[in-house]
Amino acid sequence: MAVSLVTKYVKDFVAPHELEGIAPQVKAAHDTLHTKSGLGNDFLGWVDLPNSYDKEEFSRIKTAAKWIQQNADVLIVIGIGGSYLGARAAIELLRSPFYNNLKKDTPDIYFCGNNISPTYLNEILSICQGKDVAVNIISKSGTTTEPALAFRVFRELLEERYGKEGAKERIFATTDKARGTLKELSDREGYQTFVIPDDVGGRFSVLTAVGLLPIAVSGADIDKIMAGASDATRAYNDCDLSRNDCYLYAALRNILFRKGKKMEILVTYDPSFTLMGEWFKQLFGESEGKDNKGLYPSSVTFSTDLHSLGQFIQEGSRIMFETVVNIKRPKQDFFIKNDEQNFDGLNFLSNQNMSVVNEKAMKGTVLAHTEGGVPNLMLDVDEIDEYTFGWLVYFFEKACAISAYLLGVNPFNQPGVESYKKNMFALLGKPGYEDMKAALEEKLR
Amino acid sequence: MAVSLVTKYVKDFVAPHELEGIAPQVKAAHDTLHTKSGLGNDFLGWVDLPNSYDKEEFSRIKTAAKWIQQNADVLIVIGIGGSYLGARAAIELLRSPFYNNLKKDTPDIYFCGNNISPTYLNEILSICQGKDVAVNIISKSGTTTEPALAFRVFRELLEERYGKEGAKERIFATTDKARGTLKELSDREGYQTFVIPDDVGGRFSVLTAVGLLPIAVSGADIDKIMAGASDATRAYNDCDLSRNDCYLYAALRNILFRKGKKMEILVTYDPSFTLMGEWFKQLFGESEGKDNKGLYPSSVTFSTDLHSLGQFIQEGSRIMFETVVNIKRPKQDFFIKNDEQNFDGLNFLSNQNMSVVNEKAMKGTVLAHTEGGVPNLMLDVDEIDEYTFGWLVYFFEKACAISAYLLGVNPFNQPGVESYKKNMFALLGKPGYEDMKAALEEKLR
Repeated sequence: MAVSLVTKYVKDFVAPHELEGIAPQVKAAHDTLHTKSGLGNDFLGWVDLPNSYDKEEFSRIKTAAKWIQQNADVLIVIGIGGSYLGARAAIELLRSPFYNNLKKDTPDIYFCGNNISPTYLNEILSICQGKDVAVNIISKSGTTTEPALAFRVFRELLEERYGKEGAKERIFATTDKARGTLKELSDREGYQTFVIPDDVGGRFSVLTAVGLLPIAVSGADIDKIMAGASDATRAYNDCDLSRNDCYLYAALRNILFRKGKKMEILVTYDPSFTLMGEWFKQLFGESEGKDNKGLYPSSVTFSTDLHSLGQFIQEGSRIMFETVVNIKRPKQDFFIKNDEQNFDGLNFLSNQNMSVVNEKAMKGTVLAHTEGGVPNLMLDVDEIDEYTFGWLVYFFEKACAISAYLLGVNPFNQPGVESYKKNMFALLGKPGYEDMKAALEEKLR
Repeated sequence: MAVSLVTKYVKDFVAPHELEGIAPQVKAAHDTLHTKSGLGNDFLGWVDLPNSYDKEEFSRIKTAAKWIQQNADVLIVIGIGGSYLGARAAIELLRSPFYNNLKKDTPDIYFCGNNISPTYLNEILSICQGKDVAVNIISKSGTTTEPALAFRVFRELLEERYGKEGAKERIFATTDKARGTLKELSDREGYQTFVIPDDVGGRFSVLTAVGLLPIAVSGADIDKIMAGASDATRAYNDCDLSRNDCYLYAALRNILFRKGKKMEILVTYDPSFTLMGEWFKQLFGESEGKDNKGLYPSSVTFSTDLHSLGQFIQEGSRIMFETVVNIKRPKQDFFIKNDEQNFDGLNFLSNQNMSVVNEKAMKGTVLAHTEGGVPNLMLDVDEIDEYTFGWLVYFFEKACAISAYLLGVNPFNQPGVESYKKNMFALLGKPGYEDMKAALEEKLR
């Protein structure tokens, strides 16, 4: 298995009979998911996606990626939430957090339309000066404020620079298959389009065109990603906890929640995994954080953050558990030479690979934190490659769905996201929201 | 005032008499700090630092920064924890998160030695190929594992590339004023050195040479930073809560903690403030997270994370409050033009600056989250510039010290950071740790 769950560091916190106790609920959650009988059952397209995905479109994604690689110095990916985090996390993991700074034969990739900061937008525009640009706009409706605002700007830029005909070749729209303003515009203007399936929510969409087009442009092999995810669909289809690490993880995090833990901290020792932590936070936070329930998802990158949040985790309020992603082989290693002077006293580390030091830091920390009263789950991951990424995505997606059903919430909606939007629209004078405006402004006075 | 606290969105959660109730404790914390009679009183050098700093060294910092600007394409800053986060946060805030990608007349700046990832180190080395490099190694002792390992590598690189004489000009060591292996090596080799004062802990050190040298290299005006911090020392010296927003903030967060809130989320609407969130997390997490106490510090960047953790904050477990940093004027604005076609229906936003939209998103969100049961504190910040950065740093440092004294913990130690280090050293076979090794390995079996 590309990913396996290590439970020995949680043994002092969870007794075997607790797993026995929750097993029938796991079975119920499995049945709810697979018979499509539960809350949110309109959004189960991700479950079999790694096998049933549209092969013709997949091939068009690869062709489009190649075209972009050959014709653009910079790809601007416009999207927010699930239309942003998955692709960015994959590119940082599979290529590098320094992707845009390293020498390479693929385009730079910048993400835009995921905030309302004018400084951010201006800076991206200035980076585009004198470079050939392509745009991937990702939006189901085409009317979400952040990406739509950014797309207005980049569409104008491309049309000015390349003319209407030139621009249409350089704009790739990932959107609804039939409806919505972005789909209409794309058909009218002749942009190539890719589909956000109706039954796959944003945070579950990284293995659709939403994630795959930018990832393919970065040079990562998307065939291998789908192969890893597909193998994971088969690996995690058994509702017996002793044979399904994905369900075991979902069960353990719910047991810890029911014991009073308030948050889960996803831990990595590889900086290239940092954005995967952000992806994880969206996946679990948005799926479980409702009805005043849920584990708050947090993330840290060690050893960096051992010199930051490490103190709190070791000795602060005892409200958390950790899930450590243990990547067994880094993408590159570094041999530590002996230093004859040994002025820093570090020769006890020399004549071995740096990955060994990182591994011992990880193991030492797991023992220190569990000793300090923080349960530690560990996910052993063979290495960082496309296959493992695909597997890991599916592991977390399915664990999240099962976990949310165990919690008793709808894993697939996000009603709370509308609250700020409504207020924002009212304050900005959007037609249809006039009634709310005066009351809100009164509260702000 | 460059920074002011808005308390109206917390009125439904904290009654006026609660502030009256905590006021004597705030006065006691103030007295403890200013009479230097409390826990950790060896580490109070930061309190008057913005006035009493070493002016001769400050001038050397500016000269060194100029030399680096003229002689290096890349500055590698080697440090971890407080010797890393402050400078990086300042450069992202005052210059840009895209600093290394934007055209500029100052060197690229990369941070190294803040983790044990071999991939990360290899990538930084590959970025340095064919470029003129200078190094700022920041370490009190010179033996902290992460920076010491990285410094071995970069020292060798510089000596190979520039010879011993050339290398010594390019290495700048920020370290103890008299002792430690890095100070010894620097004196022997002839590196220019800057001082980490004995009475200023890492997380309170951004206004010493630790932060100031890299910040000055980035082109930011460090005189203005000190001016802002200095004015803040005078602004926050009154122990009357009604006249001291810094203490009021410390009081309110302790009141909310005592009511059962488990975490504080620092909120920004400007991506360039994101790393300030990391700096904040170290400052508060390491200062307060001990003796099984403390608010867990978290941070989000909106509106990006409104499409991620936003759902949880709106409707999940009611365990948090938010502190919103409201930057009133962005560094650059962007005028939203009208679009005749209006295909996206966004014309209700047009003919105004994008900063207005961001502000309404912020206000709409504050109302939505407080409505959802999340107390909101707000820090109004005039604009992003050096003066305000200095002020804000001092605001948070002093609030943190007062807050930790209110909590009853030592704000200035970090005993828990040793736990993982000891285990790591034992597992790596460091001389002196032999006794622990076998027992730890047994636990890992």
